[in-house]
Amino acid sequence: MDPKIVSNLENEVQEKLNWLGEFGKDPEGGVSRLLYSKEWIEAQKSLEQLFKDEGLAVQFDEVGNLFGRLEGTTKKDETILTGSHVDTVKNGGLYDGQYGIIAGFLALKYLKENYGAPLRNIEVVSMAEEEGSRFPYSFWGSKNIVGQAKNEDVKGIKDFEGIPFDDAIHQAGFDYRQNPEQVRDDLKTFIELHVEQGNVLEVEKKDVGIVQHIVGQRRYTVTVQGEANHAGTTPMGYRKDAANAVSRMVCAINDAAVAEGDPLVATVGKIILEPNTVNVVPGKATFTMDIRHTEKGALVEFADQVEVKLREIAGNLGVQIDIDLWMDADPVPMDPDVVKVLQEQCDKNDLNYKMMHSGAGHDSQNIAPVIPTAMIFVPSHKGISHSPNEYTNPKQLAEGVNALICALYELGYKA
Amino acid sequence: MDPKIVSNLENEVQEKLNWLGEFGKDPEGGVSRLLYSKEWIEAQKSLEQLFKDEGLAVQFDEVGNLFGRLEGTTKKDETILTGSHVDTVKNGGLYDGQYGIIAGFLALKYLKENYGAPLRNIEVVSMAEEEGSRFPYSFWGSKNIVGQAKNEDVKGIKDFEGIPFDDAIHQAGFDYRQNPEQVRDDLKTFIELHVEQGNVLEVEKKDVGIVQHIVGQRRYTVTVQGEANHAGTTPMGYRKDAANAVSRMVCAINDAAVAEGDPLVATVGKIILEPNTVNVVPGKATFTMDIRHTEKGALVEFADQVEVKLREIAGNLGVQIDIDLWMDADPVPMDPDVVKVLQEQCDKNDLNYKMMHSGAGHDSQNIAPVIPTAMIFVPSHKGISHSPNEYTNPKQLAEGVNALICALYELGYKA
Repeated sequence: MDPKIVSNLENEVQEKLNWLGEFGKDPEGGVSRLLYSKEWIEAQKSLEQLFKDEGLAVQFDEVGNLFGRLEGTTKKDETILTGSHVDTVKNGGLYDGQYGIIAGFLALKYLKENYGAPLRNIEVVSMAEEEGSRFPYSFWGSKNIVGQAKNEDVKGIKDFEGIPFDDAIHQAGFDYRQNPEQVRDDLKTFIELHVEQGNVLEVEKKDVGIVQHIVGQRRYTVTVQGEANHAGTTPMGYRKDAANAVSRMVCAINDAAVAEGDPLVATVGKIILEPNTVNVVPGKATFTMDIRHTEKGALVEFADQVEVKLREIAGNLGVQIDIDLWMDADPVPMDPDVVKVLQEQCDKNDLNYKMMHSGAGHDSQNIAPVIPTAMIFVPSHKGISHSPNEYTNPKQLAEGVNALICALYELGYKA
Repeated sequence: MDPKIVSNLENEVQEKLNWLGEFGKDPEGGVSRLLYSKEWIEAQKSLEQLFKDEGLAVQFDEVGNLFGRLEGTTKKDETILTGSHVDTVKNGGLYDGQYGIIAGFLALKYLKENYGAPLRNIEVVSMAEEEGSRFPYSFWGSKNIVGQAKNEDVKGIKDFEGIPFDDAIHQAGFDYRQNPEQVRDDLKTFIELHVEQGNVLEVEKKDVGIVQHIVGQRRYTVTVQGEANHAGTTPMGYRKDAANAVSRMVCAINDAAVAEGDPLVATVGKIILEPNTVNVVPGKATFTMDIRHTEKGALVEFADQVEVKLREIAGNLGVQIDIDLWMDADPVPMDPDVVKVLQEQCDKNDLNYKMMHSGAGHDSQNIAPVIPTAMIFVPSHKGISHSPNEYTNPKQLAEGVNALICALYELGYKA
């Protein structure tokens, strides 16, 4: 007997989010729970107790990822994993990361209460770190799970107060992995439930998203060198105006992105002019360009085409241009079989869902190359993210958990 | 017998500029001589001595403008005035302002030595202040000469160290004018010699410019309110990107300015994005717009047309716009008769000159509405201004003085 859609989850998921959100709650609203901080330790220890109280087998790995296991009866060497990250950005919201942990816990609790032990192990994980908000290193939790974390990359880094990573991990009672490249061979599937951090689901009035790809991204810094001149005494024809040049570049980038269409996005988020004063023609400008796409070929082709266009604009205006690519991450496809399970379960249970991609990065992008992985999204009101104002309504939070319950049942309880 | 072009002026003008540039010389190069500072007092006192040594009748007015007079023989109630300002910006150059004083002094010296006393008085003035670099008030010198300075506007202001204007003027040994609106009725003409602060003369290979207008200017702050969004999760069609909107506005402003052509210039010198970070679609942008033209009607018409265009762009992109006009100064024509004298003298003496406008503000713009006024420019290498790197070659400095000598002879020695 397959699980039914659970109608009374709304209060429980909201109540548990509120509870977990107390650890690191900012006086002015929002949650700040940075890796290995006092608040982070309290949250992980409290989750450990919560898992234990529900009868799950609990274990921390060396670095502080917390696992709560519902033991399988027959396929004990196969584990279905779900969860997300417990850390937040500074002054973040109540949903990003912790929703995936609470959802996973509630799914296991419901399955256990209603269907007893599964055939395979089902585990919920509260991953140590994803945001890179305390130390300049992201995905510490998931990278350790799949043996991709490099201990030598974190040993020298410090947080914004100068505290070494090395001190922080030890003071929190954790340590580096002895065999950092080892991966548990029982992990057969990972499903991460997360808020969308965009407004596509809300605009399209969907409760649930099934992620097929996490976008690849390229990030650039573009420097334009013109000539600073007096704004009054320099005729238009004598100028090498860096602001004018950059503006034409930003228009070209946006025009090209709109012409290319979804799933491509291109963003100029930052522009710095020099000297940046009312009565001087700007001599220099620096801007960032962030390009994302679900397909590597299309991403590279678009980026190349934009680069040509930018150089052409610079040439036409007689300014120098330097284009520096400093981040180049490939798109990550989700596992088609896991995606199919999710889609079938959503269809079967009449969930109001949408097939989509993730434009943001997630732990799943590290896990997917090693373990068959998929993601479920729930809407983010107005797309607000990394803010105390992020919000998802309880009905949609519950629908996400329902989708997860159905998928875990399918994967964990069936032969 | 009219004055001949003087061929041996180059060394003398350069030597005197170097001498005056010692007062306020910065250790790292450049000159900083702010109103009523120790360096400023030393410069004015040293100029007083220089003028006296040359047999000029010397007088400070109440606020510290210094006048050196070559007495006329018959028309003692008529004075031809020349000069410029003695103050500099912080870390300014060797030419801006002080060139006009040195040129005036050398012209009087040459005329006196070669032609004796003129019919009318000829005076050189070292004006107290033009730049507004110490206190937030510009043109204190020239405004006092023409009775336009408002004592109540300066009494409450302070410099960047918190020193009140009121203390500074008294500690320098000067005071407010008793009759601030009074204007000397003997002043019949003013000619200011100044560096161009642009590169038009250099590009067009001219030694001297005769200014016909000083531009009017309007300055605006434009605020664009869009919507900050996640750069990855917000499809292009869902964005209200303030950077994209501002870029289209900057392009429109530049296109309109190029289409309008000289003497109009329009500059976006400053752009501030918020939050200005690589992975967020900018939600807000603020930029400045500086528009200048020699004709008021054309200035206003252009500004109105641009404003309509900006509002149209904002409307098309669904962003809010606020346009704040915070400076609105009318163009100032130079006196046609004085301009004619300059032009005739340049023609007669085969000077390599150009009729032009000033895109920058000068003391002459305050004096011109009260006393018939004109300006002579000499080239600024690469248009560099307000910098230790400003430079005019000695030959061109000498040509400017020659133009001034001829004009002062015409105006001061002829019936």
